[in-house]
Amino acid sequence: MSMKVTPISGFPEFLPADRLVEQHVLSVIAETFQLHGFANIETRAVEPVSRLLGKGGDADKEIYGVSRLSADPGDADEVDPSRRLGLHFDLTVPFSRYVLENAGKLQFPFRRYQIQKVWRGERPQDGRFREFVQADIDVVGAGELPFHYEAEMPLVIVDAFSKLPMGPFRVQVNNRKIPEGFYLGLGIAAEQVVTVLRIVDKIDKVGPEAMVAMLVEAGLSAEQADKCLALAQISSTDLSFVDRVRELGVEHPTLDSGLEELAAVVEVAAQQAPGVVAADLRIARGLDYYTGTVYETQLIGHESYGSICSGGRYDSLVSDGRTTYPGVGISIGVSRLVAKLLADGDVVVSRPTTTCVLIALNQDEDRSRAMGVAAALRSRGIACEVAPKAAKFGKQIKYADRRGIPFVWFLGAEGEDGVVAPDSVKDIRSGEQVPAQAQSWSPAAEDARPIVSARVIEGA
Amino acid sequence: MSMKVTPISGFPEFLPADRLVEQHVLSVIAETFQLHGFANIETRAVEPVSRLLGKGGDADKEIYGVSRLSADPGDADEVDPSRRLGLHFDLTVPFSRYVLENAGKLQFPFRRYQIQKVWRGERPQDGRFREFVQADIDVVGAGELPFHYEAEMPLVIVDAFSKLPMGPFRVQVNNRKIPEGFYLGLGIAAEQVVTVLRIVDKIDKVGPEAMVAMLVEAGLSAEQADKCLALAQISSTDLSFVDRVRELGVEHPTLDSGLEELAAVVEVAAQQAPGVVAADLRIARGLDYYTGTVYETQLIGHESYGSICSGGRYDSLVSDGRTTYPGVGISIGVSRLVAKLLADGDVVVSRPTTTCVLIALNQDEDRSRAMGVAAALRSRGIACEVAPKAAKFGKQIKYADRRGIPFVWFLGAEGEDGVVAPDSVKDIRSGEQVPAQAQSWSPAAEDARPIVSARVIEGA
Repeated sequence: MSMKVTPISGFPEFLPADRLVEQHVLSVIAETFQLHGFANIETRAVEPVSRLLGKGGDADKEIYGVSRLSADPGDADEVDPSRRLGLHFDLTVPFSRYVLENAGKLQFPFRRYQIQKVWRGERPQDGRFREFVQADIDVVGAGELPFHYEAEMPLVIVDAFSKLPMGPFRVQVNNRKIPEGFYLGLGIAAEQVVTVLRIVDKIDKVGPEAMVAMLVEAGLSAEQADKCLALAQISSTDLSFVDRVRELGVEHPTLDSGLEELAAVVEVAAQQAPGVVAADLRIARGLDYYTGTVYETQLIGHESYGSICSGGRYDSLVSDGRTTYPGVGISIGVSRLVAKLLADGDVVVSRPTTTCVLIALNQDEDRSRAMGVAAALRSRGIACEVAPKAAKFGKQIKYADRRGIPFVWFLGAEGEDGVVAPDSVKDIRSGEQVPAQAQSWSPAAEDARPIVSARVIEGA
Repeated sequence: MSMKVTPISGFPEFLPADRLVEQHVLSVIAETFQLHGFANIETRAVEPVSRLLGKGGDADKEIYGVSRLSADPGDADEVDPSRRLGLHFDLTVPFSRYVLENAGKLQFPFRRYQIQKVWRGERPQDGRFREFVQADIDVVGAGELPFHYEAEMPLVIVDAFSKLPMGPFRVQVNNRKIPEGFYLGLGIAAEQVVTVLRIVDKIDKVGPEAMVAMLVEAGLSAEQADKCLALAQISSTDLSFVDRVRELGVEHPTLDSGLEELAAVVEVAAQQAPGVVAADLRIARGLDYYTGTVYETQLIGHESYGSICSGGRYDSLVSDGRTTYPGVGISIGVSRLVAKLLADGDVVVSRPTTTCVLIALNQDEDRSRAMGVAAALRSRGIACEVAPKAAKFGKQIKYADRRGIPFVWFLGAEGEDGVVAPDSVKDIRSGEQVPAQAQSWSPAAEDARPIVSARVIEGA
């Protein structure tokens, strides 16, 4: 096949060394989710378009439709519009469908994690892709879900992120009941609340003045708009945000309830993970199904990059008519995070290949013996490969060096007396060569596999 | 969202316990590939349809086209037919494109593994899905690729499969040069060879008589057709197949070359993995880009289920006009394999959840202390979760039992004198309860994580 090759915008791919970084991030996240008792599932890549359109605001603009190029006339998935398929644009919609489909076979509260690709037909930008990986956790109850899970979610994320080779981050938390109660207490009509939320959510994009102007344009008085701005500008890593909201002089029972819940989330976070979780009353999250705590996460010093991990509480994501399933979830934008780590050069891999040992070949007749050595090393967890072809030792070392393989194994030569000399292994970085047996030799622990770590800044 | 939920035929999903089996299979395969020095990559899910149509015979019938539901008029990916996108139906076509795109940045021979979902719009059947996971290894050279890699590939598969909880299997190997040289030596025209190959490939489906009849219908003499059948019926785990082919009295240099290569593959396999790899001269593989060794893999006793792992050598999968990239690859049908293991009940999981310990709560005020215990256990790799709500101990044990969690942790009670009793942990299977500290207690190694293993048949 000979054909011009052009990358497709928004569909990034990695070279093997960068993929090692992505795999490391994915495995730390998955391992952390498992330690916190989340069960893994995967859902199919496609959902009926009708379901994808059901929630998520303007999601319809983002959906990729899927259809067989040569569909049979009788294929219901193609013909029946209610069964038309599209690629999922998040993991929440498929998960809610999965809960409904399997409710009788799941234990509630159901803690699940899910790490998969999702697709959105949006215009690609810095850190925004058309195909990307999300890593989600949700806890879903049948009929009810205790509030304390809203305090637990950000702690799981803090645990995962603290093990990753990334810089400092901040989980920003708000509670939907605070702005809602505050707006109602200000005398804003109930049907206006979502509109006001959406405008306030734009504060980082448009700035405070434009936000106030948009609120006035939407029908708020100047005083109401100013109070909305004042609320959005409150943040704290301790409980002081409560008094600052009270000082604005607005009262409403929903506001009281929201302040109480947010205070509880911030208090638990201050105990279990001090200094990382902050109340930030500007956080709204565009999606209208959130009903309680909402989360965003910023990389400190890279705030303009946007949130790399978001979510919240929803009282009714899904219902079968008899039972409603409330939940709370949070989603890591893995591709966004990895793209940032790689772009900034903040992360290093100790070597670009998993292979630890190259078994050198002096002559082709030794290949079978070399394969035996390789099998013995592998049986003890040491990744290795036999040289592509027989060559002089210098060439073999050059090959290993070019690949980033740290050790070269030399088979002992057979002397004229028929006695075979012992094998030896050379660390090509130090040049040190020692006698070795495939049944017992091991590399130093730090050389066993590539290690992904944060770049240490010289002199810092 | 309330909506009727119906599964989509051909798009299987697992409950958490079955997903543990799939995850185990995937991780054993990935770990084995790494031990053999294969680098991991992932490619995007979509390719231009023009590229997908380029190879693979009647692949056009299988392709899912992808397009944005509300495409912008100027979006070249939608408007330009040469850029129309489809979901990949295998990992070989995307990999060949990846090699071409990144040739300057890769080291050759390039050993890569790739484990991803692929999509085919075929009619779903037993073990055949529309969305499924493949696990591929390939070794690709720039310009040339030594033959010995054709002997190495099946050994990697044998290594992976021997670590999986599956029954006995057989890797069947053939070499395209054998039937090709044999047919040419029989006097069949060169342009007829692929047609004959495709008919012979149907022998398992239609039976030998029908196959011979189809060959005669395609223009072969009865004697030629009988010889084709005789060739296809030869198989052996040793080198005896060579003499049996010679006895058929057909001669051609391509046949000689094929026999020599297949003998080398079988010989290496007999040394490194005795009894598992067999020469089987009926194996043809439908895809016309194979030029040397070809592989299929059967589960012994389940031959009618078809191949669960297939591949072969290709001299020119891809070329940029200057350099041609030959390769050899093999692909495990992970979804097919896992579906079979689960359907036959041949595999058991020691428990249905990763969680090892439930931290019980006697009263809600203890949640913070319980979270501290959970954090201490997790920091030592023990998966745990805090009880959903405070309840009597009996209820907590019932909850753990229903979830399959083996241990329940009890916080020491505070006595009237203010002294806190030590914590304790109960193995709810044996009922044994012992004092424990979160900083030091560990479960038995076999209880740390769920263990996936082959079912032991009673009395066997």
